[in-house]
Amino acid sequence: MDKLTLYIGNKNYSSWSFRPWIALEGCRIFFEEVLIPFDFPAGNPRIREVSPTGKVPMLVHGEFKVWESLAIIEYVAELFPDAGLWPKDRQARALARSISMEMLAGFRALRNACPMNIRRPVSRLDLPEGVMDDVARIETIWRDMRALSGGPFLFGAFSGADAMFAPVVNRLEVYDLVSAADTLDYMAAMKALPAWQKWEKAAREEPWIVPEDEA
Amino acid sequence: MDKLTLYIGNKNYSSWSFRPWIALEGCRIFFEEVLIPFDFPAGNPRIREVSPTGKVPMLVHGEFKVWESLAIIEYVAELFPDAGLWPKDRQARALARSISMEMLAGFRALRNACPMNIRRPVSRLDLPEGVMDDVARIETIWRDMRALSGGPFLFGAFSGADAMFAPVVNRLEVYDLVSAADTLDYMAAMKALPAWQKWEKAAREEPWIVPEDEA
Ligand SMILES: N[C@@H](CCC(=O)N[C@@H](CS)C(=O)NCC(=O)O)C(=O)O
Ligand SMILES: N[C@@H](CCC(=O)N[C@@H](CS)C(=O)NCC(=O)O)C(=O)O
Repeated sequence: MDKLTLYIGNKNYSSWSFRPWIALEGCRIFFEEVLIPFDFPAGNPRIREVSPTGKVPMLVHGEFKVWESLAIIEYVAELFPDAGLWPKDRQARALARSISMEMLAGFRALRNACPMNIRRPVSRLDLPEGVMDDVARIETIWRDMRALSGGPFLFGAFSGADAMFAPVVNRLEVYDLVSAADTLDYMAAMKALPAWQKWEKAAREEPWIVPEDEA
Repeated sequence: MDKLTLYIGNKNYSSWSFRPWIALEGCRIFFEEVLIPFDFPAGNPRIREVSPTGKVPMLVHGEFKVWESLAIIEYVAELFPDAGLWPKDRQARALARSISMEMLAGFRALRNACPMNIRRPVSRLDLPEGVMDDVARIETIWRDMRALSGGPFLFGAFSGADAMFAPVVNRLEVYDLVSAADTLDYMAAMKALPAWQKWEKAAREEPWIVPEDEA
């Protein structure tokens, strides 16, 4: 088979890159990675050269390009149907997509106020309106899905849906936004994944600072 | 099989409702519809009672609920694999998802400045920054996909990807945003669908006016 190459941004900051990266790595799918560091404020022209949207992540398979974090997960799930990217049960899979798309389309108050920042020491911010509503909905999603599946991940074993929420695990932690035991338990399960630790280590070793993501 | 019930908002304004509705109707899948009119500015409490996100669209299948426009399309595509909701070819299907998710996650400048409004007479607005960049990217997507597939729709025959762009067809028309022949040709193909005409007729007959969507 042609090799898979995932184009990503800075590991410390690129929340959309983290999602397909941890999905593939967490499901033991082999891929090469190409990291194009952000070069703010103008944007790195190398991203615009390779990606149809001018954004990362983007997956290249042979000559074929797939973009959008969740569309990359869907494509790889079709290539490797037994890798566990989606739950096997049809209804569980539908719920996995509903919540993954809520993440893709929503939670803008949280995303805007609290950028993903793997290296950030834990501390609170003054939060604009809407952020805590987003956090409450996210905690409800996690609680409901883990109650249905039995946990420890949203659909039992780690899946693409957990990957879609990975950057939120970082945000809830470093901006000190949650205290419920079941929420912290889920976050601990995510952070214990070898794939998480590999990404985190690389993020901590990166030299680049993006001032506008240092809230 | 249990029946499918699609909960939607006002046909004149609810762009997210239009997407799964025209996907299912255009692919000849039988469903019942329940319309809960918006009741601005407070929001209609009936939506919050039935939907886990407090938003429409939402699909109910027996007792099972699926939300998010594109997750509804995915679920129904799994129930009816031969209905044509997604292209049969794997790479075409991956592209259909990439562009559908670009729509789900993006084009916020256009979406905010130019609300879907089926009844609106054609006229221009003063446009904020970013709107014409969104329009240009949408025209590129339509052009590229129709060049690959041969048209008339994005992937040859009508599919879920066309459905995801249906509200944009209305916006580009009623705010007079485009003039390229191939763009207009695609919009004409969409507007000629019996499913489009059925939705449009119902939208024109609705009594409700939502002032904040009358730009
Ligand atoms: N909806 C897209 C979002 C992609 C996105 O916004 N990527 C950001 C980085 S996290 C980007 O590439 N920005 C490029 C730039 O700002 O130069 C996805 O899910 O992949
Ligand atoms: N990302 C969601 C968006 C759903 C959405 O925003 N729906 C709007 C109507 S178009 C809504 O229900 N708003 C409820 C309200 O404002 O009361 C989807 O794709 O389904």
